[in-house]
Amino acid sequence: MSLSRPVVFFLSDYGLADEFVGVVHGVLVRLVPDVAIVDLTHGIPPFDVRAGAESLARAVPHLGPGVVLAIVDPGVGSTRRAVAMRAGDGRWFVAPDNGLALPAAEASGRVTAARVLKKPVDLPATFDGRDVFAPAAGALAAGADPASVGDEVDPASLVRLPPLEVTRRQEGDRVVLRAPIAWVDRFGNVQLAAGALEGPPSGAQKVLIRVEPQEPPRRRELLARRVLAFADLDDGEAGVLADANGRLAIVVREGSAAKTIGLRTGGSVELVW
Amino acid sequence: MSLSRPVVFFLSDYGLADEFVGVVHGVLVRLVPDVAIVDLTHGIPPFDVRAGAESLARAVPHLGPGVVLAIVDPGVGSTRRAVAMRAGDGRWFVAPDNGLALPAAEASGRVTAARVLKKPVDLPATFDGRDVFAPAAGALAAGADPASVGDEVDPASLVRLPPLEVTRRQEGDRVVLRAPIAWVDRFGNVQLAAGALEGPPSGAQKVLIRVEPQEPPRRRELLARRVLAFADLDDGEAGVLADANGRLAIVVREGSAAKTIGLRTGGSVELVW
Amino acid sequence: MSLSRPVVFFLSDYGLADEFVGVVHGVLVRLVPDVAIVDLTHGIPPFDVRAGAESLARAVPHLGPGVVLAIVDPGVGSTRRAVAMRAGDGRWFVAPDNGLALPAAEASGRVTAARVLKKPVDLPATFDGRDVFAPAAGALAAGADPASVGDEVDPASLVRLPPLEVTRRQEGDRVVLRAPIAWVDRFGNVQLAAGALEGPPSGAQKVLIRVEPQEPPRRRELLARRVLAFADLDDGEAGVLADANGRLAIVVREGSAAKTIGLRTGGSVELVW
Repeated sequence: MSLSRPVVFFLSDYGLADEFVGVVHGVLVRLVPDVAIVDLTHGIPPFDVRAGAESLARAVPHLGPGVVLAIVDPGVGSTRRAVAMRAGDGRWFVAPDNGLALPAAEASGRVTAARVLKKPVDLPATFDGRDVFAPAAGALAAGADPASVGDEVDPASLVRLPPLEVTRRQEGDRVVLRAPIAWVDRFGNVQLAAGALEGPPSGAQKVLIRVEPQEPPRRRELLARRVLAFADLDDGEAGVLADANGRLAIVVREGSAAKTIGLRTGGSVELVW
Repeated sequence: MSLSRPVVFFLSDYGLADEFVGVVHGVLVRLVPDVAIVDLTHGIPPFDVRAGAESLARAVPHLGPGVVLAIVDPGVGSTRRAVAMRAGDGRWFVAPDNGLALPAAEASGRVTAARVLKKPVDLPATFDGRDVFAPAAGALAAGADPASVGDEVDPASLVRLPPLEVTRRQEGDRVVLRAPIAWVDRFGNVQLAAGALEGPPSGAQKVLIRVEPQEPPRRRELLARRVLAFADLDDGEAGVLADANGRLAIVVREGSAAKTIGLRTGGSVELVW
Repeated sequence: MSLSRPVVFFLSDYGLADEFVGVVHGVLVRLVPDVAIVDLTHGIPPFDVRAGAESLARAVPHLGPGVVLAIVDPGVGSTRRAVAMRAGDGRWFVAPDNGLALPAAEASGRVTAARVLKKPVDLPATFDGRDVFAPAAGALAAGADPASVGDEVDPASLVRLPPLEVTRRQEGDRVVLRAPIAWVDRFGNVQLAAGALEGPPSGAQKVLIRVEPQEPPRRRELLARRVLAFADLDDGEAGVLADANGRLAIVVREGSAAKTIGLRTGGSVELVW
């Protein structure tokens, strides 16, 4: 892959209150002066590998060539490996080997090669983003020989997150789809870990949304319509639609579905139709 | 307008917790590899078109050439238009047609042309920032023929926010200025939707600030001095001054006027002198 | 110092909810179209010069050539000076003269020259980041004659923060180290204003952490182990280690030391071993 300008896409759980993100940028600019850095987000909840993997998988299909640098790393300082994975489309993914970047890499084509990143030997405590991941991402963005970032390992050995369980069953003459909540965005739209085709058929007028008991308790059931777009709903009305990522989403027009129904990432939802 | 380097100025209510902003950056970098993206802010409260318009109008006079991309879009998915507006100084403003960018565009010279952006026809649900606005902003930043982003429309048809009402009346021998609060910044400075010349004269020693009933109730009246600068106040003292945007502002030296007086965006204030 | 590409490193207490940071970026891009701007952080608590100085001192050793622009400025609008300081390694530091950037500048080599920035004469109220600091940083990044930003002053006249007091005493056969908390990061790691060598020796199995009374009251004492890295701790166990900045830090593996022990920036801690 030859780039007119080196690009690094950067996602983490570092937040923006500290200088972590800025220091990683500084290291990248020092190593690759003409780099363009695209911050995907640094708002992943601390240590939430699953949320980071979901966010990355949503973003990557819309990005051009470049190196993806992803850091959500509860195992920092442990024996977990730091890796660079080469996807079928030529992009490199640099990340801890904890399942964070693998789904996005595989969605970019089969992972054709992987390398375990070298660690600086003389540092007892490291800030791995600064000392391990950024140097590797910078080197790959600058077009260095991949062998320089570390030794090759079998892509089959890469750590994979357990799949989220989506089930579909009959209850009398009704279909019950049970799916984990994959994402609640800033606007309160609730994305399920289920593809749009698994949900109720277009035009279903009465889709019952059943929420698992959660704290604090709120409304536990809600009727929604299966619609094509926000515009098919009245203001404040709840709907189920295929969102811009092809996933099933629960939304409220000009309102927050998460607040209306009392939903948070991590829980599960049943849709009944 | 010929640019040495394409620039896109980007403002939204997307926040930074999700990957929305990052994906828009990714699309822009894919389309225009040498683009410089300036994030004005993504902290506009969700769906608050007025707050976005105020922020954009404050920022734009200080920016150089480039394309302004502004997205605060409660009507996403409805029939509201997405537009590109060309200002008298040659800058393009790409935004939903809801009044968000018009004040800033008009402050950059009369709007001389407008186009309605094409929507991707094959997508039922869209992430308009990614699929509609960013491609148009990127095309214009790259110098594409404006006709390529959509059909021309009459600039007179563009949606305009209702003006904020500022009134001035006599109460005996005193002047009462009533003005909406346009902005409360991070430091608690309170900017009114009134120009500095509408306020009390320089040197006025007793300016009474009267606050509308708000929840939670706090101090409702406060005496302030009309000063030229923060330095004319004692620590913790309240003042009224012409701020760096030429607007009337209520401030507390090394403190938060918003907290001291109990003010929030959306309310109104009376100044009496 | 000749740069292949002009770089500005930018730290402030502006936050990201308003357009302050964006406007400063806009001014820099207008003045220096090919500039690379690295945002170190804008999450310094409002007016907290000490926290800004600590953050900057942690970041700067890892950055390449460029101009450092730092703004945490409780004295804005007062008689405090705005300065540019040249460090021994050739980097310029542009900041209010309140101690914010001096530690980082001195860590980059002795401050060899300093200039007091000119203020725009025709503006009563200024947004100093936009009107004073960014123009100076841009000029220096573009390679302008330093004399153009302002008159030379004696580096010895620069304002310096009072040092943080770290004490070490004997209590019977035990050592008591008392140190202020310099930083609590997003993950709840607690960095002390003490170098790693001042702390308990490697391998100390029982380090008592004594917390000053704080509101709200929480656990006031905790036993921790002196370890080399997070990996030497069990999940949820507290430790004391030399962090990635060479400072003594209190941590909890895959947890928040700040929450566990009830620590906040600004307080002090005693370590006893």
